[in-house]
Amino acid sequence: MAGAPGADNGPVTTAEQPPAPRKKTGRRPGGADTRRTVLEAARAEFAARGYEKASMRAIGRAAGVDAALLHHYFGSKDRLFMAALEFPVQPKAAVAQLLEGDRAVVGERVAEFVLTLWEQPGVLDRLMALVRAAATTEQVARLMREFVQEELVARIAAELQVEQPELRAELMFSQIVGLAMARYVIGVEPLASATRAELVPLLAPTFQGYLGGA
Amino acid sequence: MAGAPGADNGPVTTAEQPPAPRKKTGRRPGGADTRRTVLEAARAEFAARGYEKASMRAIGRAAGVDAALLHHYFGSKDRLFMAALEFPVQPKAAVAQLLEGDRAVVGERVAEFVLTLWEQPGVLDRLMALVRAAATTEQVARLMREFVQEELVARIAAELQVEQPELRAELMFSQIVGLAMARYVIGVEPLASATRAELVPLLAPTFQGYLGGA
Repeated sequence: MAGAPGADNGPVTTAEQPPAPRKKTGRRPGGADTRRTVLEAARAEFAARGYEKASMRAIGRAAGVDAALLHHYFGSKDRLFMAALEFPVQPKAAVAQLLEGDRAVVGERVAEFVLTLWEQPGVLDRLMALVRAAATTEQVARLMREFVQEELVARIAAELQVEQPELRAELMFSQIVGLAMARYVIGVEPLASATRAELVPLLAPTFQGYLGGA
Repeated sequence: MAGAPGADNGPVTTAEQPPAPRKKTGRRPGGADTRRTVLEAARAEFAARGYEKASMRAIGRAAGVDAALLHHYFGSKDRLFMAALEFPVQPKAAVAQLLEGDRAVVGERVAEFVLTLWEQPGVLDRLMALVRAAATTEQVARLMREFVQEELVARIAAELQVEQPELRAELMFSQIVGLAMARYVIGVEPLASATRAELVPLLAPTFQGYLGGA
């Protein structure tokens, strides 16, 4: 459903891209440079003002792109929001990577993957902005719902040889969301300060159980 | 919010109090009637305008209570907020109830308890208002953090004969928060529509594992 150019097939392999050079020459809205500049401006605007108050006009101005062109290439504010806070890994590649290999330790791989991902610079900020917006704005919650169902749950469920694969994939998702909330948003201790090495052995059996057991 | 007369909601046992009669005579701020009226007005104001924009003055006006008296008896806005959205069960009693009895099925008791609680009228609204406010307002996140650590985690941890009891109690909490987010806020299907009977067998092993295994 993500209609923004390059959203589906961009070679996004790692969590972070190198900082975009703010070239004055690369303003064609379809160009990679401009896309990056617009998404940076959008992230800054959404972070500073929240989803509801963020303005397409301000984003366009910061990126040096005409508002009409912005609408033309990125669609509505909700689409630009999702593009700006895009999932920091390619869902297809991540799911394949996690589910291939020894299924008896897939729970451990998921726990390692998630906790490692959040430690990478910028990832947590984007995730938290998304969770906050989803918690307060039904429009964003709907987008997130569609994204999770289509990009994550459907892919994972297709690989599971268990009953109720979608439900199980969503329970795994729920534990990941709740972990982010408890660890980073609410910040309960000792969970907030626990190391990855402490958490993985406790989380692995949960993910293992949801994904179909040992 | 107000239950329709003769609605098929059934008698509310533990979580809800009977609707407050809006007596014009019961305005003493220390009185039970006034307290109930103020908390109702606060819930309505917080639900309608969110934590940041809610006004003590408006709450006082709706409840027919002077703003100065409101401050005197309920303290600051954050305290009134926590009182208004008060945890729908007594933490001490709930923890005792869940942890006593056969520990080999404590995970199932927790899953049943949480899912049953959320089905009771009014509980989910309050919980969601709290989660939304915590996700967007650091002041509320801090209050929630303190509440969870003191009222839930400490009590649960004291009863567990395992290593890292606080961390395990908080992982249990994280699964509960994430379940609420995924099921009710983001609303992913089929999780959002799954019945309690479908969910309990999948969630029970997770809680069981966190609370110390079989």
